[in-house]
Amino acid sequence: MTPPLEGITVLDLTHVLAGPFASMTMADLGAHVIKVERPGTGDDTRSFPPFKDGESAYFAAINHGKQSIALDLKADGDRAIFDRLLERADVVLENYRPGTMEKLGYGWEDLHERHPHLIYGAVSGFGHSGPEALKPAYDMVVQARGGVMSITGEAGRDPVRVGASIGDIVAGMYLVQGVMGALMVRGQTGKGQKVDVAMLDSQLAILEHAIAITTTTGTSPGPTGARHPSITPFETFHAADGLFVIAAGNDALFAKLCDVLGLPLANDPRFATNPARCENARTLKRLIEAITLDKPKAHWIEKLESVGVPTGPIQNVSEALQDRQILARNMVVDVLGEDGQPKYVAAGNPIKMSGLDDPKTRRPAPLLDGDRATILKWLDAPAGDTPSAKKNKT
Amino acid sequence: MTPPLEGITVLDLTHVLAGPFASMTMADLGAHVIKVERPGTGDDTRSFPPFKDGESAYFAAINHGKQSIALDLKADGDRAIFDRLLERADVVLENYRPGTMEKLGYGWEDLHERHPHLIYGAVSGFGHSGPEALKPAYDMVVQARGGVMSITGEAGRDPVRVGASIGDIVAGMYLVQGVMGALMVRGQTGKGQKVDVAMLDSQLAILEHAIAITTTTGTSPGPTGARHPSITPFETFHAADGLFVIAAGNDALFAKLCDVLGLPLANDPRFATNPARCENARTLKRLIEAITLDKPKAHWIEKLESVGVPTGPIQNVSEALQDRQILARNMVVDVLGEDGQPKYVAAGNPIKMSGLDDPKTRRPAPLLDGDRATILKWLDAPAGDTPSAKKNKT
Repeated sequence: MTPPLEGITVLDLTHVLAGPFASMTMADLGAHVIKVERPGTGDDTRSFPPFKDGESAYFAAINHGKQSIALDLKADGDRAIFDRLLERADVVLENYRPGTMEKLGYGWEDLHERHPHLIYGAVSGFGHSGPEALKPAYDMVVQARGGVMSITGEAGRDPVRVGASIGDIVAGMYLVQGVMGALMVRGQTGKGQKVDVAMLDSQLAILEHAIAITTTTGTSPGPTGARHPSITPFETFHAADGLFVIAAGNDALFAKLCDVLGLPLANDPRFATNPARCENARTLKRLIEAITLDKPKAHWIEKLESVGVPTGPIQNVSEALQDRQILARNMVVDVLGEDGQPKYVAAGNPIKMSGLDDPKTRRPAPLLDGDRATILKWLDAPAGDTPSAKKNKT
Repeated sequence: MTPPLEGITVLDLTHVLAGPFASMTMADLGAHVIKVERPGTGDDTRSFPPFKDGESAYFAAINHGKQSIALDLKADGDRAIFDRLLERADVVLENYRPGTMEKLGYGWEDLHERHPHLIYGAVSGFGHSGPEALKPAYDMVVQARGGVMSITGEAGRDPVRVGASIGDIVAGMYLVQGVMGALMVRGQTGKGQKVDVAMLDSQLAILEHAIAITTTTGTSPGPTGARHPSITPFETFHAADGLFVIAAGNDALFAKLCDVLGLPLANDPRFATNPARCENARTLKRLIEAITLDKPKAHWIEKLESVGVPTGPIQNVSEALQDRQILARNMVVDVLGEDGQPKYVAAGNPIKMSGLDDPKTRRPAPLLDGDRATILKWLDAPAGDTPSAKKNKT
């Protein structure tokens, strides 16, 4: 089978993380991604540590397999190139502040009129509508304003940031969904549409139980440390040699947990149902830890796994990258350097499809403007000879 | 325009969060979602607090607009109904442990042979391959094992869980991308494929900078409280009345920040570049707070916004739900009760598309088996009269 986005050409004007993360997924799904960068400095993340041979490992891990051309969209010559790229593109992605593309003459309305089939994907801090559309944002601004920080951390202490940049990443993932949806509609109608994803909206979209709690009880939940607020037991517990996780999400699993621990609590009215366990969570934690403190983590993880209770270690990133299951799933891939040898490490593609190859390496991340000649040559070639030959496939 | 997934019928055997979150997005994009539940108890989340009139607000917020039929897939009569549903379905979703569907006779191989056009989307803790495929997992197990918890929290303290269930949600989002990709390919080939998403894989997929740091420096990053590990300044700062966020992600923004604070640091070699600022982050934080402590949060947020430096408050969930920008973006919607009146509150659809309606309400979440009669009647009706009439559109 062909990859889902084979033949789709993406003109990617985005930088930093939300947009580049989206176009990375599109590349993994088969799209031809052309990164259009600012001359001189390019994507800000080219200067983000850590570095290897003077190049950002962070940039490489997100931008592998893309091409790069540096264009000054205010200069006539470069605009002419960009105009020709637009003629060949299926999707244009941008993450400027609303209005920036309009000032350049490349806003959605203009582009839609000139290229009716083109799909326009925008990801911005606050979206393209509403009273604060024009404000700038980065990941942490939306993690803070969108409520996620208020439920992350320890009770009674300052809120903490989610260590992964979910303010960007979740928005980038919604952008992928929207663009794929627009491609599906285009397959029927021939017409492109605009997809407008806001990082702040995307944070609200993942709050789930916190919204239910707030709107039902009238009280915003606070941070609960390592504990789920609506499921018990679902948290970290101390073993003899440190913390591990038990997540017994229903009554049957709780009964199995009680069996393993030798605790006669499954029919105790304080703990017989999940609502009761939530009410008595602090007591239950102490009853469980009075047992688990006696033996090391590995003992309890093995015992609990053998009866099917979800459990596991807390791994640091190095341990996760060596986890046998993660490696067996090809979730750690090598990004090649310009010499074709493995140079950087990146996360693999988590979308495993029976009809999609799952390669163990990724092509290099581009040098700034490194594909200019190739791209110009591609623009001169007849469409039939190019990666965008199948542009009308969907 | 038509919604991207209009005419697509999804048989959703998933429960708890990862799968139901995915099918919620599919419903928002126009799919007809039939939730196939276990007779008697149904989806576990029907018993998750908080409750309203005895019903779970959490369940309602994730399952609005879906239909429900309770089927015992080990009983002949119910299997016959399920077989008929499969004939009309485009997508089947399941989040059992690998092998469960095979034991029921509904594994991917069987279904693909009988219904070649059917797309099979599986989301599981550890995926359908690898040595630990059969282990059970919940959100927190993969947050812990996948490395995200190790970079979330305060340095020197126990790791904390991300308050939003990103172990489930990110996997559900990848499932949506995979299923949409499979629908696009089916539009070309007529053949369905299997999509196999693991929650653990999905956690690794969002680590980005942490992987770059670990593999480049040889050291796993630890939690950094409220600070980004690779960008400075990008963290919370104390004002006179509490914490707020400043995220100055590049040199130009840092220069503007220095102007607002009256700090002559933009050309100071300790702070002139992002790598230098990262090395001297602790000093920089103190220099900034020596100024920001003098005035309240609102003062600094207004000053910084006026020059375009990303900044903002840390809001709790109640404040986020009343945020004027979030409300203007229709990100807080009412879920109707059976009487057609607003009953629960849910997050809106963050995928804003120029060709997709963005309604302010959602249809009720289903009662367990509440749509059995409707669904049976639908099965008896000719395909042309039904929501799946356009099933071959893609």
